Amino acid sequence: MTRIVLHNYFRSSTSTRLRAALNLKALAFEYVAHHLRKGEHRGASYLAINPQGLVPSLVLEDGTVLTQSLAIIEYLEEVHPTPPLLPASAVERARVRALAHAIALDIHPVNNLRILNYLKSAFSASDEAVTEWFGHWVAETFKPLEDMLAADPRTGRFCHGDTPGLADICLYAQVLNNRRFGVDMSPYPTIARIFEACAAVPALAAAAPDRQPDSE
Amino acid sequence: MTRIVLHNYFRSSTSTRLRAALNLKALAFEYVAHHLRKGEHRGASYLAINPQGLVPSLVLEDGTVLTQSLAIIEYLEEVHPTPPLLPASAVERARVRALAHAIALDIHPVNNLRILNYLKSAFSASDEAVTEWFGHWVAETFKPLEDMLAADPRTGRFCHGDTPGLADICLYAQVLNNRRFGVDMSPYPTIARIFEACAAVPALAAAAPDRQPDSE
Repeated sequence: MTRIVLHNYFRSSTSTRLRAALNLKALAFEYVAHHLRKGEHRGASYLAINPQGLVPSLVLEDGTVLTQSLAIIEYLEEVHPTPPLLPASAVERARVRALAHAIALDIHPVNNLRILNYLKSAFSASDEAVTEWFGHWVAETFKPLEDMLAADPRTGRFCHGDTPGLADICLYAQVLNNRRFGVDMSPYPTIARIFEACAAVPALAAAAPDRQPDSE
Repeated sequence: MTRIVLHNYFRSSTSTRLRAALNLKALAFEYVAHHLRKGEHRGASYLAINPQGLVPSLVLEDGTVLTQSLAIIEYLEEVHPTPPLLPASAVERARVRALAHAIALDIHPVNNLRILNYLKSAFSASDEAVTEWFGHWVAETFKPLEDMLAADPRTGRFCHGDTPGLADICLYAQVLNNRRFGVDMSPYPTIARIFEACAAVPALAAAAPDRQPDSE
C-alpha cells in the first residue's frame, strides 16, 4: 500500500506540528528522518524533494510534494476535515489562526536552529547570549499571548474551546522546544495549563520529539 | 457609515500585504497609522486593540479585532471570496500557501525592524552587519524560491497562473522591503519579473509604502 511520506526531524518544532496534525486526523504515514545537525536536509536527495532544504515535507500517495508546515496542515484540514483543527465560523477561524501565527511567525522563525547557528558564526554569540536571545523572543510573544488567552471567554481547556486545534499544535511544539532552553513558564499559567492539556492527548503526546524513531 | 479600520504603518511589510489584499478585494477601509520608529504601536491605546503591539490589525464593522496579517487575509478570503487569492483545489492552494509562507515565515520574521534593532543592542551589530544579515536571509529563501517558481509550469505571469494571489502579495511586499537594504535582484529573474507584474496591478501599486498617508 502506498502511504504518505513525512520527511522530518524529531526535534524540529515544525515537524512536531505536522506530526501532531497527522496524528489528530488519524492519518498513517511513513516516517523518514533527516538529521539537521548533520546537515542531511542539505543533501541533493532531499533538495530534490524540497529545494528550500527545510523540514517537514509531506509526499502524497501520488508523489505530490507539499512544503511549509502550516500550509500542509491547512491542506490536511481541507482534504480531511474531520476532526477539525479550525472552528466553523470565519471570525473564530481567524482567532485560531492568529494565535497559531503569533507563535509560528513571531517566535519560531527567529529561534530556529539556523538562526541560532548564524548568531554564533556572524556575531560570535556565546551559548549564554543565544539562550538569552531565545528566551527574549519567547517572552515578547508569550506575555501578550498569555493575556489574550486568559482574557478571552472562547479559551477553554484548549486555546479555543475544549478540543485541540491549530493553535494548540503550535503552542505544544513551542513549549516543548522552550524546555531545551530552560524557559521559565511560571509567568504563563494559561499557556502552561493548555500545554499540559495537549500533552494529555495521545495524538499530541505521540508527536513529541522523544517519541520519534530518530530521537537521541 | 461604519467602515472597517486598518491599523498599520506605511513601511511595514505585513501592513503592505494586508493593504494589497484589501485593495484586490475592493474593500474600503479607514487608514490609521501607528509610527513604529516612534513606538506608537507600544502605547496603551494600541495595546488595547492588539496586545502583541504589532501591526497590522483590522477592526471589523462590529468591533471585532483581527490580528496577524496572514490570518486576516485568510479571513478576507473566506468572507469575500471574489476575486480569489487562493486557487480552487487543495493541492494548488497548498502550493500558493507554501510559496507565501516561504517568504512570510522564513524571511520576514527574521528581518523585522524589532529583530534588527535587537541585533544592534544585544550584539552591537553595525549597520553593515545588519544589512548583511538582511541580505543573507533573503538569499537563503529567494535562491530556492527562484528555482521553485522557474521550474513549475503552474507559474504564470504571477506565482500561480495569471492573476495575483496570496503568494504574490507576500512577494511584492518583500521585494519592496528588499530595496531599502539594497538587495541585488539579478540572481532572481523570475521573482523580479513577478514583482514587476505585481507593481503593474493598480490594487498592489496603491498598497506600496510610498503611496500611504503616513509615508515619509
